[in-house]
Amino acid sequence: MSFNSFGHIFRVTTWGESHGPALGATVDGCPPGIAISEEFIQVFLDRRRPGQSAMTTQRQEPDRVRILSGTYEGRTTGTPIQLMIENTDQRSKDYGEIARQFRPGHADITYHQKYGLRDPRGGGRSSARETAARVAAGGVAQAVLQALVPGLTITGYMVQMGEKHLNRANFDAAEILRNPFFLPDASAVAEWTDYLAAIRKDQNSVGAAIEVVATGCPPGLGAPIYAKMDSDLAAAMMTINAVKGVEIGEGMAAAALLGTENADEIVMGPNGPDYLSNHAGGILGGITTGQPIVVRMSVKPTSSILTPRRSINTAGEAVEVVTKGRHDPCVGIRAVPVAEAMMACVILDHLLLDRAQTGGVRGQIG
Amino acid sequence: MSFNSFGHIFRVTTWGESHGPALGATVDGCPPGIAISEEFIQVFLDRRRPGQSAMTTQRQEPDRVRILSGTYEGRTTGTPIQLMIENTDQRSKDYGEIARQFRPGHADITYHQKYGLRDPRGGGRSSARETAARVAAGGVAQAVLQALVPGLTITGYMVQMGEKHLNRANFDAAEILRNPFFLPDASAVAEWTDYLAAIRKDQNSVGAAIEVVATGCPPGLGAPIYAKMDSDLAAAMMTINAVKGVEIGEGMAAAALLGTENADEIVMGPNGPDYLSNHAGGILGGITTGQPIVVRMSVKPTSSILTPRRSINTAGEAVEVVTKGRHDPCVGIRAVPVAEAMMACVILDHLLLDRAQTGGVRGQIG
Amino acid sequence: MSFNSFGHIFRVTTWGESHGPALGATVDGCPPGIAISEEFIQVFLDRRRPGQSAMTTQRQEPDRVRILSGTYEGRTTGTPIQLMIENTDQRSKDYGEIARQFRPGHADITYHQKYGLRDPRGGGRSSARETAARVAAGGVAQAVLQALVPGLTITGYMVQMGEKHLNRANFDAAEILRNPFFLPDASAVAEWTDYLAAIRKDQNSVGAAIEVVATGCPPGLGAPIYAKMDSDLAAAMMTINAVKGVEIGEGMAAAALLGTENADEIVMGPNGPDYLSNHAGGILGGITTGQPIVVRMSVKPTSSILTPRRSINTAGEAVEVVTKGRHDPCVGIRAVPVAEAMMACVILDHLLLDRAQTGGVRGQIG
Amino acid sequence: MSFNSFGHIFRVTTWGESHGPALGATVDGCPPGIAISEEFIQVFLDRRRPGQSAMTTQRQEPDRVRILSGTYEGRTTGTPIQLMIENTDQRSKDYGEIARQFRPGHADITYHQKYGLRDPRGGGRSSARETAARVAAGGVAQAVLQALVPGLTITGYMVQMGEKHLNRANFDAAEILRNPFFLPDASAVAEWTDYLAAIRKDQNSVGAAIEVVATGCPPGLGAPIYAKMDSDLAAAMMTINAVKGVEIGEGMAAAALLGTENADEIVMGPNGPDYLSNHAGGILGGITTGQPIVVRMSVKPTSSILTPRRSINTAGEAVEVVTKGRHDPCVGIRAVPVAEAMMACVILDHLLLDRAQTGGVRGQIG
Repeated sequence: MSFNSFGHIFRVTTWGESHGPALGATVDGCPPGIAISEEFIQVFLDRRRPGQSAMTTQRQEPDRVRILSGTYEGRTTGTPIQLMIENTDQRSKDYGEIARQFRPGHADITYHQKYGLRDPRGGGRSSARETAARVAAGGVAQAVLQALVPGLTITGYMVQMGEKHLNRANFDAAEILRNPFFLPDASAVAEWTDYLAAIRKDQNSVGAAIEVVATGCPPGLGAPIYAKMDSDLAAAMMTINAVKGVEIGEGMAAAALLGTENADEIVMGPNGPDYLSNHAGGILGGITTGQPIVVRMSVKPTSSILTPRRSINTAGEAVEVVTKGRHDPCVGIRAVPVAEAMMACVILDHLLLDRAQTGGVRGQIG
Repeated sequence: MSFNSFGHIFRVTTWGESHGPALGATVDGCPPGIAISEEFIQVFLDRRRPGQSAMTTQRQEPDRVRILSGTYEGRTTGTPIQLMIENTDQRSKDYGEIARQFRPGHADITYHQKYGLRDPRGGGRSSARETAARVAAGGVAQAVLQALVPGLTITGYMVQMGEKHLNRANFDAAEILRNPFFLPDASAVAEWTDYLAAIRKDQNSVGAAIEVVATGCPPGLGAPIYAKMDSDLAAAMMTINAVKGVEIGEGMAAAALLGTENADEIVMGPNGPDYLSNHAGGILGGITTGQPIVVRMSVKPTSSILTPRRSINTAGEAVEVVTKGRHDPCVGIRAVPVAEAMMACVILDHLLLDRAQTGGVRGQIG
Repeated sequence: MSFNSFGHIFRVTTWGESHGPALGATVDGCPPGIAISEEFIQVFLDRRRPGQSAMTTQRQEPDRVRILSGTYEGRTTGTPIQLMIENTDQRSKDYGEIARQFRPGHADITYHQKYGLRDPRGGGRSSARETAARVAAGGVAQAVLQALVPGLTITGYMVQMGEKHLNRANFDAAEILRNPFFLPDASAVAEWTDYLAAIRKDQNSVGAAIEVVATGCPPGLGAPIYAKMDSDLAAAMMTINAVKGVEIGEGMAAAALLGTENADEIVMGPNGPDYLSNHAGGILGGITTGQPIVVRMSVKPTSSILTPRRSINTAGEAVEVVTKGRHDPCVGIRAVPVAEAMMACVILDHLLLDRAQTGGVRGQIG
Repeated sequence: MSFNSFGHIFRVTTWGESHGPALGATVDGCPPGIAISEEFIQVFLDRRRPGQSAMTTQRQEPDRVRILSGTYEGRTTGTPIQLMIENTDQRSKDYGEIARQFRPGHADITYHQKYGLRDPRGGGRSSARETAARVAAGGVAQAVLQALVPGLTITGYMVQMGEKHLNRANFDAAEILRNPFFLPDASAVAEWTDYLAAIRKDQNSVGAAIEVVATGCPPGLGAPIYAKMDSDLAAAMMTINAVKGVEIGEGMAAAALLGTENADEIVMGPNGPDYLSNHAGGILGGITTGQPIVVRMSVKPTSSILTPRRSINTAGEAVEVVTKGRHDPCVGIRAVPVAEAMMACVILDHLLLDRAQTGGVRGQIG
């Protein structure tokens, strides 16, 4: 049990508030001897960094990660890796006026009710800044996966933003990192840009849906019932701020399918079993099949908007809340590298768990 | 870490295979002094029992639960409660022919790849029979919740079966237990019956979506980041056989919303904060608000169908698979009491976790 | 977190009371494909069984173990193994009179204070019968260890009973299972027999110290700080009823040593590093060295004696307590197979943990 | 499962190496609203700080703790508390020559075998510096205990150093913090000083035994079998560097006792049950009685001595090892505040666990 950790063997504990001196992640259980550097991790952090474009918040955080422990001469030692990101841009005066108000849609009121007090500076622990720590931890997971499972790739992208949907016919993975939406369709970028600019101008925000796909993951990871790959992925994604739904493969659409449509038929391929479709999203009975693992999630629109909303304060008095400060009109954008990081951590964790129980040996077919 | 457990404090470990001598649940961490009986738990088990109608499998299991430990004179003692259900109907010959084949959409192939062997009798551990153990554990959770949180109710029902959707305008909770679909709309039962009968006649199966709602849950349960009430609920539901998507509140639909639409405005009610809507599904920042907790999930159509499907066997040879035996045309129906049980366990677990950390004291408003 | 489980990957949850219908152990995380049978486990159970001689309690329990799940055709499947032992000899009338009294030195009073009620029949959960479940789980661990680490042996024996001490000059492992004391010195058996008979005749009981040694354990198991092999062994042994002290290697005697005496010098042997002594008890920095792992523990005299003792009852009234019923004059004897079982579980657990993190690869020397 | 964490609810993860940029502890699960400050924690750290006297190593570390997260306006918020101690005195050249040698009695060789590499600077993770992080975490636990259990005290002291034993007839708790040995007997300080000076002069080191006592702990903390207060205490103490034995109450001496001697008789006192003796060390059946909790442990002599010892290097060649650098002649001394910290953490953890399961309500007597 831990309130701020996830993972069974590759175990990540994040700590820190939006406007404290620093935040970070303690990564425990990492395999030893893996090449790792601050520069390698920084690449992932830079992808989620605010201030990259007009699409995300203007807060200018360099978000430099430091490795404080767990490595020696550029390799992991098997001891805990402390990843720290100092908070350098702490304009807490922006938030001062809402210390006694509860912003609708925010954790302000539930923190107050549960803990009796809360750190109001920038949302404290509930700030999306916490996800920087996950992305750093995900960078470590990516380094380990590259060493242990060459060829495994994890790719996230947006599939929906408000009323805009990805046209999958145009899917081009090479475009994802070339636009501020992590959108695999260059032809739609201008339209999405205009759409989001209008929402921002309206002092509003908008939801999103993102998809993350892992290819090259070996079969046999996961477990049948409560350490299922899919339930751990669902939990991991649902811990990301503002996520309200998680789908594996067909997801919610499976409710509409017939049995003849849903089950992926199996044939023998050159390298083992092959499937004629992937409705399952790469997971059967909680265990990976070797097909791409497909996870989708929705991200609600940020509640921090300039449009006034009805609420109450700690005295129980009615107030109108307007959230000033720097906020993303679509927090779902920055959730893309966060979701990739979570998937990297979960897959690595199950790789380690699997070799604990089975030694990583696979039952043969053919 | 445990492959077959869930829960932090109220911790449930299930065990057993479809066609072994018995299956059950070990419930650890239960508060002491709670009145409990086999009869109380049996009520919940009877709801998910197969053989109740033409809608579910004809397997006639009495599914009688026995309490083997953890109670004395009708009360829990605080020691582990062993709940055992003996398997009395073990017609394993029905399944013999598929011991070397992999049924498409089943865990057969992933178990084989991971473990090198599998128990083919009735699907072994991957059988939906495992969910009987959860329902029994959920019965214990319900007894504890009744004692600790009088007025808390947990209600599950179907909202979709294939192309049929619940008409929420007709919602009548009183109807749920009066029809074999757990459908809160008496007027639709005949139509759903005909629809499913046709699917069965076609030797097919169909998916479903179900919703579970907890009312009367106190605010303050959950935790901000990785012990979130919503992530634990998502994980719990995703562990149920065949579930492929989980939603909290607006769920996937949140991707289409604007910030002005999504955040639930707050007013001061007679008993504390009140909300003008419940898009959040009763959870903000991972912590309950006191509003109804709303969880929805999809259940894929069972892959055990009489229609032939292409597959391979352990020798890697192409085969045509037809799953004989007794199977539900819509496994989503029986998932309703299972999802209720999981929600009861998760809420109780967080109630206990909360009183560990905070003593159950709530921050005051007004 | 679990109140009734131990182990990280190979995880054992025991359940059941002395006089309930059954007790047992749920073994989760077991590697698949391991040959196992009830007969194999029964051998270990028979060693701890009461009623074997005048040295232990006369309660005649057959203690037959049944495997209810987790195996198929004589091999483990990787799913949870339920081991059940039915209680056939439930003479609860023996204990009826003490239901409202607190026996000095027993858990009666602390259970009452903590839980508000207790199962007084035979001590309920606090009965040494619980250790039968551990021994059954230890049998599973032994089967796995035989498959994964051929040559590893775990041997427990008594080193002290009251004022009698093992003369290590006479140590003969072959004698251990040939006498009712698990004593590796045939020449002392008569003396120990007379000593214990006199104590029994005096309506008294006596403490003991036992030692368990694992040989053939590979180096590299454990972890530096909080998943130390020694701390997990200490915890495991301290969970055995009546154990009050645990030592690794030199144990408490290390307090008297000089640095020049204590550190085991290292030389290069034919098969890798060799040590000129084993003060460390096979563990350095929480990690096994490959030398024999040596653990010692004390077991207090049973408090269930016929000699009257001062106490109080639930009404707070002074009473004189005499514990009738069938009790061992030296419970330390039966702790020997229990301690062996715990060591088997802990070593296997760390073997699995190690291959999770490191893949089981060892750093080379020379 | 976590390699570098302990605790169930109040959960501490330590990180950092002796000569890295910093080390620290992540404290999760802390109750909210508790007054805490760096100054409060610093008091505990200062007690274990090296360089306080000729008795301990001359390394001059200020060991200043910083709170990086989890507090707001001087109170805990319920979110993770990051405690960081920067390493300012990193004379790694002292250790350079032993990077390829294995010091006898050290973790050098087991780290190398397990992980394939190790951080040789100052012992890396195996350095006793890690215990500073525990002491900082223990400071947080002490602050919470003072708030939740007024009157609870935790006191550690030395009872043995090599051939010198505490004369309990002279026991005076007021003296403990007045001498560099944490010795509750002022009259023995001179003798112990001379004894240790001679050992240092001989380029040797010596073992020790320490005792920690908690008074004012409520009854009912702990659990019967595997979450026993005593097994958690034993595990906690055994994780401290160099500890080789742990005893509760009578400890190993219980092996020599008769049942009539060992069981503590009970009478009714003015405030509830009272005991005529405390052989049990305050714990019965894994649950506290309300009597003082008494734990004792041995600490082996440090293996880092100037006297040459036989060993091998990574090439498998025979070498003579002399450990230069700054080392304590008796590491047991500094273990006293560490053991106090561990006891504070364990007791608090069980206090929280107990209120999770039972709500903290106690069964009445009388």
